[in-house]
Amino acid sequence: MKILALDSSGLTASVAVVEDDVLLAEYTVNYKKTHSQTLLPMLDEIARMTELDLDTVDAIAVAGGPGSFTGLRIGSATAKGLGLALDKPLVSVPTVDALAYNLYGAEANICPMMDARRNQVYTGIYTFSSDGAFQVLQKQSPCAVAEIADRLNTLGGEVIFLGDGVPVYRELLKSLMKVPYRFAPAHLNRQRASAVAVLAMEYVRAGKTETAEEHRPDYLRLSQAERERAARDSQ
Amino acid sequence: MKILALDSSGLTASVAVVEDDVLLAEYTVNYKKTHSQTLLPMLDEIARMTELDLDTVDAIAVAGGPGSFTGLRIGSATAKGLGLALDKPLVSVPTVDALAYNLYGAEANICPMMDARRNQVYTGIYTFSSDGAFQVLQKQSPCAVAEIADRLNTLGGEVIFLGDGVPVYRELLKSLMKVPYRFAPAHLNRQRASAVAVLAMEYVRAGKTETAEEHRPDYLRLSQAERERAARDSQ
Repeated sequence: MKILALDSSGLTASVAVVEDDVLLAEYTVNYKKTHSQTLLPMLDEIARMTELDLDTVDAIAVAGGPGSFTGLRIGSATAKGLGLALDKPLVSVPTVDALAYNLYGAEANICPMMDARRNQVYTGIYTFSSDGAFQVLQKQSPCAVAEIADRLNTLGGEVIFLGDGVPVYRELLKSLMKVPYRFAPAHLNRQRASAVAVLAMEYVRAGKTETAEEHRPDYLRLSQAERERAARDSQ
Repeated sequence: MKILALDSSGLTASVAVVEDDVLLAEYTVNYKKTHSQTLLPMLDEIARMTELDLDTVDAIAVAGGPGSFTGLRIGSATAKGLGLALDKPLVSVPTVDALAYNLYGAEANICPMMDARRNQVYTGIYTFSSDGAFQVLQKQSPCAVAEIADRLNTLGGEVIFLGDGVPVYRELLKSLMKVPYRFAPAHLNRQRASAVAVLAMEYVRAGKTETAEEHRPDYLRLSQAERERAARDSQ
């Protein structure tokens, strides 16, 4: 099975092609350019370098949310365009799950944190059992930092944090955490399209695909415009 | 600290730039082109995409061996050229250590295997302790597959295999392994320059750098030509 995967849910833009248990190519950039400037040129670059015929891809996977509203829209629009043009199914992989999957094999509690502004993070709690099975202990959701810290303290055991929420809330975590914790190193602490691709294979096997028309990013929260309208309407 | 890292020790070519705890860019390709066709264009591509001024790099890291003789020579020659031109120190990171470092946080015994032909692998045994410390249980070396399987069986505990030796020796491992084992997934099972970069930072902090002139790849074994000459000379 060959999967083309995109992740532009955060500051990082990442594109990967995985065939069965081999990563054919991955290109990841964490730079101030917008994803509309990077994502398609990066895909074009790896397709050219690996002489990839896009028609040979079985499915297009995308980090389907949560994340930055603009980033998610760019990723989803790109995936929808590719899916329509190539007539391939789409796979929407939960962003926070894919982040946690970077730490394959870690038996600590894995806690990705994406900065969601307003003192919240998009987060979840994950671990790998000793036979390598991926366990979702708490599904991805928007959550106050204090609340997720509380749950981790209650769960007990070592914690590994990762994601772009870490630099923002590092000091706050210091005051909140009562169990041992540490931060994932640079090669694994941000979005990687290859992790999206590997998780997507399991979704395809389970029949969890959608058409390009059906696909919608999963923001998990209302946008600022929607919040403001709701506040106005309720007055 | 900003590190530019290269890994062309195996079939995979990988280039990354890491600054402190952030991966700025990584480009990885596992394709039939030779590294002399891919490595410098890949570096050029990420430097262009991230508007990287190579003069701002603190050190050039390279997967210093073992690995394919030609691959190591291309990686080392590229690193030496960059180090000389930019007047930057080099850091030679053991290839097998960097492979194991992909599995940050895994408390199983991590066993990378690079196919070394002639029924041997370049291998080692590693693990992460529960506080995240990287432990080298057996240093990288060329070794018969049966011998490393034996040591893993004696050590006890779960094993995670990775590397390009896995598809070659998968069936042999099935007959040899007496402890539970599994294989790392596609996003982590081959060389990644970002892991080389993160390990290189520890080398720089420990003062373990070398000049471009001093650097030599560490083949760990004689080349075929050297073996044949030695055999001839001993007759």
